[in-house]
Amino acid sequence: MANGLLEGKTGIIFGALDDKSIAWKVAEQAVAQGAKIVLTNAPVALRFGGIHELGEKLNAEVIAADATNMEDLENLLDKSMEILGGPMDFMLHSIGMSLNVRKKRTYTDVNYDWMHKTFDISAMSFHRLMQLAMQKDAMKEWGSILALTYIAAQRVFPDYSEMAESKALLESFARSFGYHWAVKKNVRVNTVSQSPTPTTAGSGVKGFQTFLDYADKMSPLGNASAEDCANYCVAMFSDLTRMVTMQNLFHDGGFSNTGMNPEVLGMEE
Amino acid sequence: MANGLLEGKTGIIFGALDDKSIAWKVAEQAVAQGAKIVLTNAPVALRFGGIHELGEKLNAEVIAADATNMEDLENLLDKSMEILGGPMDFMLHSIGMSLNVRKKRTYTDVNYDWMHKTFDISAMSFHRLMQLAMQKDAMKEWGSILALTYIAAQRVFPDYSEMAESKALLESFARSFGYHWAVKKNVRVNTVSQSPTPTTAGSGVKGFQTFLDYADKMSPLGNASAEDCANYCVAMFSDLTRMVTMQNLFHDGGFSNTGMNPEVLGMEE
Amino acid sequence: MANGLLEGKTGIIFGALDDKSIAWKVAEQAVAQGAKIVLTNAPVALRFGGIHELGEKLNAEVIAADATNMEDLENLLDKSMEILGGPMDFMLHSIGMSLNVRKKRTYTDVNYDWMHKTFDISAMSFHRLMQLAMQKDAMKEWGSILALTYIAAQRVFPDYSEMAESKALLESFARSFGYHWAVKKNVRVNTVSQSPTPTTAGSGVKGFQTFLDYADKMSPLGNASAEDCANYCVAMFSDLTRMVTMQNLFHDGGFSNTGMNPEVLGMEE
Amino acid sequence: MANGLLEGKTGIIFGALDDKSIAWKVAEQAVAQGAKIVLTNAPVALRFGGIHELGEKLNAEVIAADATNMEDLENLLDKSMEILGGPMDFMLHSIGMSLNVRKKRTYTDVNYDWMHKTFDISAMSFHRLMQLAMQKDAMKEWGSILALTYIAAQRVFPDYSEMAESKALLESFARSFGYHWAVKKNVRVNTVSQSPTPTTAGSGVKGFQTFLDYADKMSPLGNASAEDCANYCVAMFSDLTRMVTMQNLFHDGGFSNTGMNPEVLGMEE
Repeated sequence: MANGLLEGKTGIIFGALDDKSIAWKVAEQAVAQGAKIVLTNAPVALRFGGIHELGEKLNAEVIAADATNMEDLENLLDKSMEILGGPMDFMLHSIGMSLNVRKKRTYTDVNYDWMHKTFDISAMSFHRLMQLAMQKDAMKEWGSILALTYIAAQRVFPDYSEMAESKALLESFARSFGYHWAVKKNVRVNTVSQSPTPTTAGSGVKGFQTFLDYADKMSPLGNASAEDCANYCVAMFSDLTRMVTMQNLFHDGGFSNTGMNPEVLGMEE
Repeated sequence: MANGLLEGKTGIIFGALDDKSIAWKVAEQAVAQGAKIVLTNAPVALRFGGIHELGEKLNAEVIAADATNMEDLENLLDKSMEILGGPMDFMLHSIGMSLNVRKKRTYTDVNYDWMHKTFDISAMSFHRLMQLAMQKDAMKEWGSILALTYIAAQRVFPDYSEMAESKALLESFARSFGYHWAVKKNVRVNTVSQSPTPTTAGSGVKGFQTFLDYADKMSPLGNASAEDCANYCVAMFSDLTRMVTMQNLFHDGGFSNTGMNPEVLGMEE
Repeated sequence: MANGLLEGKTGIIFGALDDKSIAWKVAEQAVAQGAKIVLTNAPVALRFGGIHELGEKLNAEVIAADATNMEDLENLLDKSMEILGGPMDFMLHSIGMSLNVRKKRTYTDVNYDWMHKTFDISAMSFHRLMQLAMQKDAMKEWGSILALTYIAAQRVFPDYSEMAESKALLESFARSFGYHWAVKKNVRVNTVSQSPTPTTAGSGVKGFQTFLDYADKMSPLGNASAEDCANYCVAMFSDLTRMVTMQNLFHDGGFSNTGMNPEVLGMEE
Repeated sequence: MANGLLEGKTGIIFGALDDKSIAWKVAEQAVAQGAKIVLTNAPVALRFGGIHELGEKLNAEVIAADATNMEDLENLLDKSMEILGGPMDFMLHSIGMSLNVRKKRTYTDVNYDWMHKTFDISAMSFHRLMQLAMQKDAMKEWGSILALTYIAAQRVFPDYSEMAESKALLESFARSFGYHWAVKKNVRVNTVSQSPTPTTAGSGVKGFQTFLDYADKMSPLGNASAEDCANYCVAMFSDLTRMVTMQNLFHDGGFSNTGMNPEVLGMEE
């Protein structure tokens, strides 16, 4: 679909690594719908992923930024406004990483310095971005800010470990800052709680394929794909959804409200 | 906005009474986005409202149907499929009426026959519609079914009386039937929990203007209007939101997640 | 445990059928904790169950009442106040039955007259009871009213069928009437959302043993038993919980907040 | 009330400062119900508050511990087990402090080092405590761990600032660690979401009296007091509630499920 839904709109998209990334698909869809965007990711991600290729394809500049570093974020916002011609219409935060998971520390034996770092990368980066964007007046009236999250913020998936808390934090930042953005500039802030998605990042989590299969069977419509998520983000960036704010929006094929699916238990329905 | 988002899609819209109705706005927006629709409402509503005028404007047939009557609903579905050329892509349920409220019986002194009737009109009609539509195979794959609801299903607003239970029922039907529709035809079913809206129907509720003002002040973006709601329904009917199902979606300017807004208390922030 | 927690308190307990019933266990525990109670159930249940034996054991009168019949409920309240010496401290509603399930009509092919009857028995009976109790001033200040419910009110368990809606209704009645009871007499009203429990009634539901096993594995503490539930109800009737009202309280070994338990999938943790 | 509900049980209570503290009341109630306890608080709080006086009254040792310091927590657990004769039955976490609020930085202009510190004090301290307690096997089978929280974790109260996120974190830790405790030792972990309470700590928050009055009017039963909360904590420590885990329990006079109370708006009902 390409309906010009984002015609004339501009935005920043965080977190595109390779063509499995949700952010990658969002970038493609946003541009297909008429938006002009800037792509950003951490310096190390820029080196290993294919984001420059994506930037060329979409005619989008790529600006490196460590999302836990205020100077980097300032530079990103300043340059983006220069490139995009002023305040923006949308931003996508798609950043998450757990040091304790990566370093194989179990949830009942975490390193707290790493936990601080995990929260900073995966959640506080969202507050940092919004705080700077507000101070720099980097968003247009009725703009839309989104972050990607996961239902582990509400329910326990043991292997998700401290990312559960990261997502709980992230969703709370969306609500709290959503209030301030609404009052100040009618900007909305929401989180999209996406099905587990076979991205390169997600695949690193222990037992991830089990997550995927279980969630797919449990979800009456099956798991939502990265492409589906990109379509949904486009809807949330468009003017069709201007009065939705401070919400956590499940985009998950019905997983969140299914208590038991006979398919999971190998039963005939 | 008119982006052809619903080009080639067909649907039925319940509940347009006059130009203050949310359903009226949805009908206008759906057609503006390329959809072909059938309008329906109860026989009595057809006599008093302006729906025929809307039908002419939108080139949409108007079919009378009492949503608690299976023959009427059968006739509606049969004729609609004839007119629209087969199974449909979307349906909007926007029906609600409380006999006890209308007849000024307080919540602690209700008439239970009236309560049964209220539930039938306001909630069971949604199940009736979906049951018949499934039996008649009246929905296309990846179709979208919506019903309008209110946050009284989650929290107490004393004057809303038994409509609270009606909406709780309605939302539960959306979840339960959403499971069956997903498994059978990949159709999604959701409820939109809308800000209080100054429709002709809503205005009948005691203290309604107080509701409106309070909700408007409490909501960081203010109350969502009927037009805003129509836009959101278009997004939910479009292919951008295919993996969202069995959800209750707050379209309320942030009311639902605001605990206290200093504006309500006349405080400076 | 018997700590005299309910010493001096009186109440009515609905729904004890046989010694597998949760209500049966609540009756035993309430009396063990010092309460004086009246037992009630539908006339047909009185004939088939062992409630008279329980009444003798607990020195409690048994009064037949069809909970959908206002005269029966009036008689029950009048007689209970006579027996118990005036207004009461607590009531337990443990009533549920689905005609469509019993008569093997699937959720997508229900009979709507039966659905009305199901709602009346399983949910409206709770409103009827509270409406009459308020009109007769049958509750003491700071009393406690409980109803038993199930998580199908929030999430879909396909075989639970229209009982999902019955429980959604029931929980909404608890919230709505809870407001009015609080304002009028500082009485609290809550629902206890219990693990699936192998009662004689529950066992009739299709696939019930599968429910039980799945829920038991999914719940980090395992399923809560009828005895556990009775203990929890005692806590909710006691003066220790006077400020908890209008809540749906999960008593389920953690099921409700567990997204995936590796045990369900036969995985090692 | 003193029913010996906690007879033979032992536990640690964090956060008693003076006789307005909820933790102070919990300590008094727990001992009145037969428990033997250890009291703890940060070194600075020990100097300024009256905790030693409380310790003498309750025959409870007072052990200083900075809850963000692993050595302090280790010492606390080791000494407590020595004093109390081995693993414990309950723990109460009642700790919260926001550096940005204290230093008058608004939510849209926070200092991120202070935010890290706020999270560490107010939420990560709970994980630290549970991680050490699990490693030291400091809890008995079927023990109960509680933390106090506030509804700002779910809804925005602008002046609560980054404490909203602290509480969202805290509640997520309760769920996640609750899973691990249940699987390992049948220990339950819950949070009690208490009405705003006029403690010495709470009073420091801007506009706090407004919070109090608004919440009191909005809550059908009025605000729950510190004494009420202590009673509820006793119920949650007792064996009556063994199957409740990973829950956030609203103890708030009905505030959380009240959408609008006519009293707030000065309306007659």
